[in-house]
Amino acid sequence: MRATIIHGPGDIRVEDRDYPRVELDSDAVVRVSAACVCGSDLWPYRGVRETREPRAIGHEFIGVVESVGSGISSLAVGDFVIAPFTGNCGHCPACRDGVTVACEHLVSWGSTDEKGHFVQGAQGEAVRVPNAEATLVKVPGVKDPDDELLADLLTLSDVMGTGHHAAVSAGVGPGSTVVVVGDGAVGLCAVLAASRLGADRIIAMSRHEDRAALAREFGATDIVAERGKDGADRVRDLLGGVLAGAVLECVGTAESMDQALRCTRPGGRVGFVGVPAGGAELPIGLLFAKNITVGGGMAPVRTYLPELLDDVLAGKIHPGRVFDSVLSLEEAPRAYALMDQRQAVKVMLKP
Amino acid sequence: MRATIIHGPGDIRVEDRDYPRVELDSDAVVRVSAACVCGSDLWPYRGVRETREPRAIGHEFIGVVESVGSGISSLAVGDFVIAPFTGNCGHCPACRDGVTVACEHLVSWGSTDEKGHFVQGAQGEAVRVPNAEATLVKVPGVKDPDDELLADLLTLSDVMGTGHHAAVSAGVGPGSTVVVVGDGAVGLCAVLAASRLGADRIIAMSRHEDRAALAREFGATDIVAERGKDGADRVRDLLGGVLAGAVLECVGTAESMDQALRCTRPGGRVGFVGVPAGGAELPIGLLFAKNITVGGGMAPVRTYLPELLDDVLAGKIHPGRVFDSVLSLEEAPRAYALMDQRQAVKVMLKP
Repeated sequence: MRATIIHGPGDIRVEDRDYPRVELDSDAVVRVSAACVCGSDLWPYRGVRETREPRAIGHEFIGVVESVGSGISSLAVGDFVIAPFTGNCGHCPACRDGVTVACEHLVSWGSTDEKGHFVQGAQGEAVRVPNAEATLVKVPGVKDPDDELLADLLTLSDVMGTGHHAAVSAGVGPGSTVVVVGDGAVGLCAVLAASRLGADRIIAMSRHEDRAALAREFGATDIVAERGKDGADRVRDLLGGVLAGAVLECVGTAESMDQALRCTRPGGRVGFVGVPAGGAELPIGLLFAKNITVGGGMAPVRTYLPELLDDVLAGKIHPGRVFDSVLSLEEAPRAYALMDQRQAVKVMLKP
Repeated sequence: MRATIIHGPGDIRVEDRDYPRVELDSDAVVRVSAACVCGSDLWPYRGVRETREPRAIGHEFIGVVESVGSGISSLAVGDFVIAPFTGNCGHCPACRDGVTVACEHLVSWGSTDEKGHFVQGAQGEAVRVPNAEATLVKVPGVKDPDDELLADLLTLSDVMGTGHHAAVSAGVGPGSTVVVVGDGAVGLCAVLAASRLGADRIIAMSRHEDRAALAREFGATDIVAERGKDGADRVRDLLGGVLAGAVLECVGTAESMDQALRCTRPGGRVGFVGVPAGGAELPIGLLFAKNITVGGGMAPVRTYLPELLDDVLAGKIHPGRVFDSVLSLEEAPRAYALMDQRQAVKVMLKP
């Protein structure tokens, strides 16, 4: 089969690899209908994270179950499924707490499982999924989704669940005043999540007209282009003299966290889901003085999947609008370049 | 009147100062019945924080209203009152949010108010209280509390409200598994607060037999003497293989925060109230990877006072047991020495 392999900074190739097969009783093999490129895939692409040897890449995919192990009963060949961006066992203490990303038997796509069997990356034609019953979520009543539904479902693999985690971690609910820092796919999904949770005001910080327009479509009530102190002052003006009660940090840089903390009122909460890109730690003295709570991290998207899927299937939310480009799997190198140069918000790859 | 003045590291003197009088319509003058020495008072005492010139010290006091300004109607001469460790206005956005320590018109004891009038320190015979109606809490039906009640009431000025803030910030409730880091007065009150909020298991980290005994009296179900990784391993053993869902950090050093984070399970929460003593910032990568939420800061004790006072007056909690030493105001230098050398958990000063 064809699979996307990263060889080093800027070096993405689509190559031939062995087609996966069931290795363990709890496995399912999924034929990928759609995958995509994540902001965090750009780290090795940009050389921020080292690539020691060529490896399969990609961690977001949806597709059709093609074969299952003998221990599988809740999934069948032909089921359309969503894979979270990590696999989990479903029965360890962290899984029982719903923190599936801290699973004691965590599976990373493009890696090996606990038994030493290879697990394919998501940007390829097929993936073997260990602990398939705990990991995969079946999409009921759907066999061959149209393009719009396909896009919506694919976001549930990562970005929509991650945006939702930011909102949940910041305690967003009816009446909340929310600022979203970051206008990438996750930030835009965080706007949608805040809107879905009933927030009263949602201020999206964006300087890009197209992204700001999508943020408004997703429920943003205001757009702020200013940054730093000016940005926080603008938020304060918009909210009638106070800062926001909930701020969603969806970037992961020292600057974006600084922006988030500046926009948070005393006693407020920051939900952060941007993968920390190194640099500054959290300023504990500021958190103490302002009574700011900071929570979040790697999103347990598996836990959120059922409720978000319900809303997608009911047509209540359309997170798939974050995809502004669809390419074939063979065009993966171009997909990375588009994302890297910010010429695309989110690129879908179709094998 | 007599008042405690800090001149520099290790140099505490009780000196003569002018007796306060009403300066503003919203003032009340309170004759101090009891004050105490706080762990944070030891910072200038130890030279960790600079003392540029001699200044009045102390921020925890209770006493009797002696005179009131013309704008005061809800307080009367003779009322027994509790002062939170800062004064607040009651009507700014932060006060309306209950985050009274972020008040736009915050008053610090031993400082000056917005109009430039001196505000006495708590470790003296009397204090002028600006914004008295918003700041002071009247103790209904009490004129001359006995020693036990006096001690209980005095803790509501700071340490009991602060311990409660740690528990609230960590989301402690019925069924919670809690670790308390720090066995000073705040840590012990945090144990009591967690117990009051219905926690299922409360593990106090203590190496001092007397403090551990009081922690048990306050509701600790287990005591852990080990530190670092060993301490976290012991917590995991006690909780049947998982770490704690809520950890209360009541010290403020880099070591204590490290201990708190080590003891927190994935998806858990740290409530921190130890005044950060400099050093390490919060490790954002660890918070991200473990999905740990950190919240807390300066406790808005004014907000918590009414509910905690109800429980004190009903005899449900006796936080005053943290006082293991009572000295006269003239003995303030000795009180500081006892606290500094950890020969006392908490020293009460009676003018």
